[in-house]
Amino acid sequence: MTAELLDPTAHVDLDPLAAALSPGALVTEPDVVAAHSKDWALFCEVGTARALVRATTVEDVQATLRFASEHRIPVVPQGTRTGLSGAANATDGALLLSVSKMDRVLEVNTVEMTCTVEPGIVNQDLKRHLADFDLAYPPDPGSVAISSIGGNVATNAGGLCCVKYGVTRDYVRSLTVVLADGRVTTVGRPTAKGVAGFELAGLFIGSEGSLGVIVGITLDLIPRIPDPLTAVGLFPDVVSASGAVCDFMATGARPSLLEFLDGRTLEILNAYGDFGLPEGAGAMLLVQSNGDGSQEAAVRELERFTEVANACGASEVMFSDDPADSELLVAARRAVAPAMEKYASTHGGGELVDDVCVPRGRLREFFARLVDIEAEHPEITICTCGHAGDGNMHPSIFFDAGDPESTRIAQEAFGEIMAAGLELGGTITGEHGVGYLKRDWLARELDPVSKEIHLGIKRALDPLGILNPGKMLASL
Amino acid sequence: MTAELLDPTAHVDLDPLAAALSPGALVTEPDVVAAHSKDWALFCEVGTARALVRATTVEDVQATLRFASEHRIPVVPQGTRTGLSGAANATDGALLLSVSKMDRVLEVNTVEMTCTVEPGIVNQDLKRHLADFDLAYPPDPGSVAISSIGGNVATNAGGLCCVKYGVTRDYVRSLTVVLADGRVTTVGRPTAKGVAGFELAGLFIGSEGSLGVIVGITLDLIPRIPDPLTAVGLFPDVVSASGAVCDFMATGARPSLLEFLDGRTLEILNAYGDFGLPEGAGAMLLVQSNGDGSQEAAVRELERFTEVANACGASEVMFSDDPADSELLVAARRAVAPAMEKYASTHGGGELVDDVCVPRGRLREFFARLVDIEAEHPEITICTCGHAGDGNMHPSIFFDAGDPESTRIAQEAFGEIMAAGLELGGTITGEHGVGYLKRDWLARELDPVSKEIHLGIKRALDPLGILNPGKMLASL
Repeated sequence: MTAELLDPTAHVDLDPLAAALSPGALVTEPDVVAAHSKDWALFCEVGTARALVRATTVEDVQATLRFASEHRIPVVPQGTRTGLSGAANATDGALLLSVSKMDRVLEVNTVEMTCTVEPGIVNQDLKRHLADFDLAYPPDPGSVAISSIGGNVATNAGGLCCVKYGVTRDYVRSLTVVLADGRVTTVGRPTAKGVAGFELAGLFIGSEGSLGVIVGITLDLIPRIPDPLTAVGLFPDVVSASGAVCDFMATGARPSLLEFLDGRTLEILNAYGDFGLPEGAGAMLLVQSNGDGSQEAAVRELERFTEVANACGASEVMFSDDPADSELLVAARRAVAPAMEKYASTHGGGELVDDVCVPRGRLREFFARLVDIEAEHPEITICTCGHAGDGNMHPSIFFDAGDPESTRIAQEAFGEIMAAGLELGGTITGEHGVGYLKRDWLARELDPVSKEIHLGIKRALDPLGILNPGKMLASL
Repeated sequence: MTAELLDPTAHVDLDPLAAALSPGALVTEPDVVAAHSKDWALFCEVGTARALVRATTVEDVQATLRFASEHRIPVVPQGTRTGLSGAANATDGALLLSVSKMDRVLEVNTVEMTCTVEPGIVNQDLKRHLADFDLAYPPDPGSVAISSIGGNVATNAGGLCCVKYGVTRDYVRSLTVVLADGRVTTVGRPTAKGVAGFELAGLFIGSEGSLGVIVGITLDLIPRIPDPLTAVGLFPDVVSASGAVCDFMATGARPSLLEFLDGRTLEILNAYGDFGLPEGAGAMLLVQSNGDGSQEAAVRELERFTEVANACGASEVMFSDDPADSELLVAARRAVAPAMEKYASTHGGGELVDDVCVPRGRLREFFARLVDIEAEHPEITICTCGHAGDGNMHPSIFFDAGDPESTRIAQEAFGEIMAAGLELGGTITGEHGVGYLKRDWLARELDPVSKEIHLGIKRALDPLGILNPGKMLASL
């Protein structure tokens, strides 16, 4: 796919590009370019980019892609670079194309219940803006406070609310996209329903910058989500907790949040912040229900959770209708990523976050495998949290980054976890994406025919292969 | 696209195909083939097919497509042929490939809340099957009692519940598809969430048989939908009724049904069945709310509808919590299609059903245009019903099918209605699809870049162009 790309070391006069862009949009200072050359993923190649384009208009994006097509220069589209798979990392000789400065809300339409935004707006900023209209955009990835909507769309971001409210894809009505050759098109539906032609918007969602650069997004919104009640279940071990997840969901439950934290994660959180989480448990389930606005329905649902949790061997189930308790618990859950990062920094420095998703009915088996994998590798530590209601688990592997053997074992365990996910009918990535990190694993998940379809579509949309090469599709 | 296809009149020995299929699957009797050569659309070309394959296995579908690829014979995939755009109509020399006999439920998974079915199962039969598990598959096109799930997926069918519960696309988790060359692949996610690679399932949904033949479907389900309360609003004219739709939805309402019927439609319904619908009104809105299981919330929502309807000039608003009333009203709404067909049969024989969808905020303007279009063409009659909450309207044009001038005017008005939809920021088809009927109009809706993407994807997936040629993509 990348055979015809320009040699990364070849000189290219960037003056014509600078002239075609908004003033100041082209940045070539090596320090600035380097500072924009990686996302939050570990163990992913970081190349040396040629330059950074800070686009402020659709025309900037078009000019960059026209220039890149002309010279066959790879382009790495970037939002706020908070991804966890290296999809936004620089490749050698590439142009980094950041849309993070294109961050305006262009319209909120309260009759149609949609909003139209530029890609750079941060998810939480949009949520705050919409609250004034009593409207909600549900998807809430862990990075909600720092990740952009464009990046959320490019990776089909998930989050905590997905178990009830779905993922980014479920809220994208239409997209304006600049193709590899610089042409612009709007795909998707202008209306609540529409079946005129192929669903092209869906193709760009989750394509990780490999098919086009998203420059405009119209999102479906819903009325403000009612405040939830919260319950917490403590379990002696991870397998019994995961069993409670299956059994609770099988009752037809519709929790607005159903999170899993293992015992070690609880300890790491308490060491990180003043969360006062219970310690000594093997695992905790955090459950919220909003009863779609009915307090009685929410209470009924959490009572049902209590019954199921007890039947599955919970040591304790607590229940609160104090919003402050709920907020603290959710804040603790949201602090897992920085808490684990801090923990890693004082425990060998190495952390690999996995993102396996399995059918809920296979969660017990998945956790049993996880216990085995950890037992086989005493050199590493695994802590797991995740969006249990969706079967989407984030085992984090901690290891000694200075020790090649510890690092090798961590990477081996990382693969064993994905292999377990695949064997149990799951996927290597529930929401973090493929990027550089899992490109070889994507080749294991997809069947040969599906791989060919991927490559055929890539050729149709990006015949020169300039868009984000070496990432998602590189091993197909 | 079809330049390389076999001459429709060329002889092909079908014995090797018959030998490769399940016994009896190949049907060449001209009467039977002819009886399977059209769907419910009017004014769509119906060709003479070469044969009919009644597939009962995935292998039958594969064998048919391998044979067709080898001989470059066009293939028309068919479900129960209840579509309204001619997408399932025979083309000359084609093989009709029916999957309507592949109609088994393969699995209902109550933990994962999914079911896996063959494509031929009828929507309502699946709904009944799922009711035993207290689970629901919401999409309910007008054809719910006769259309297959495979056809629903191939056309991304909508229905009455979409205003709250979304369309077919929103419930498809994964698809097993046979490609033009006979190879089979499964696309989509095995799990509640998943971002491994492109969203290929979405590409096949709504592709009307032009990219592959769907042979297996895994659907996301939801818990049983609570019973609704029903309200009816009567309005002096269509414009005031459509205004009430906009204003009600802008309050953040989440009705489970919000249907529009104009005065003439009410008369036609009463003439067709014993519905006892109010006559003399310019339009009626039929609204249901289930309050997500809370009777109080449902009552509040319908009270809000009453306020809004009165403010918009309703002459009367009625409200019922008797399930029998609700059922009768919905049954009346569902009888619109046969009632109009019967009306047409005694009023010139001609009926063209349009399917424009506009942003809800433009509904007033759309109806004002509709009034103008009808006034300009006294030779025809237009009756309109539709899924008002989604802005999806079905104006039906009645005309004298025996009079070429009346027919010409009807087709002109049919186009004017779509043009009005496009001008108001809408689409030519909200749920019925493009097929043969609107292929020229699709070329007007899509921008040039989007057209090229369509054709590029078609080439990537069906390089010989054997899948359903002459339909959706023929005018791009």
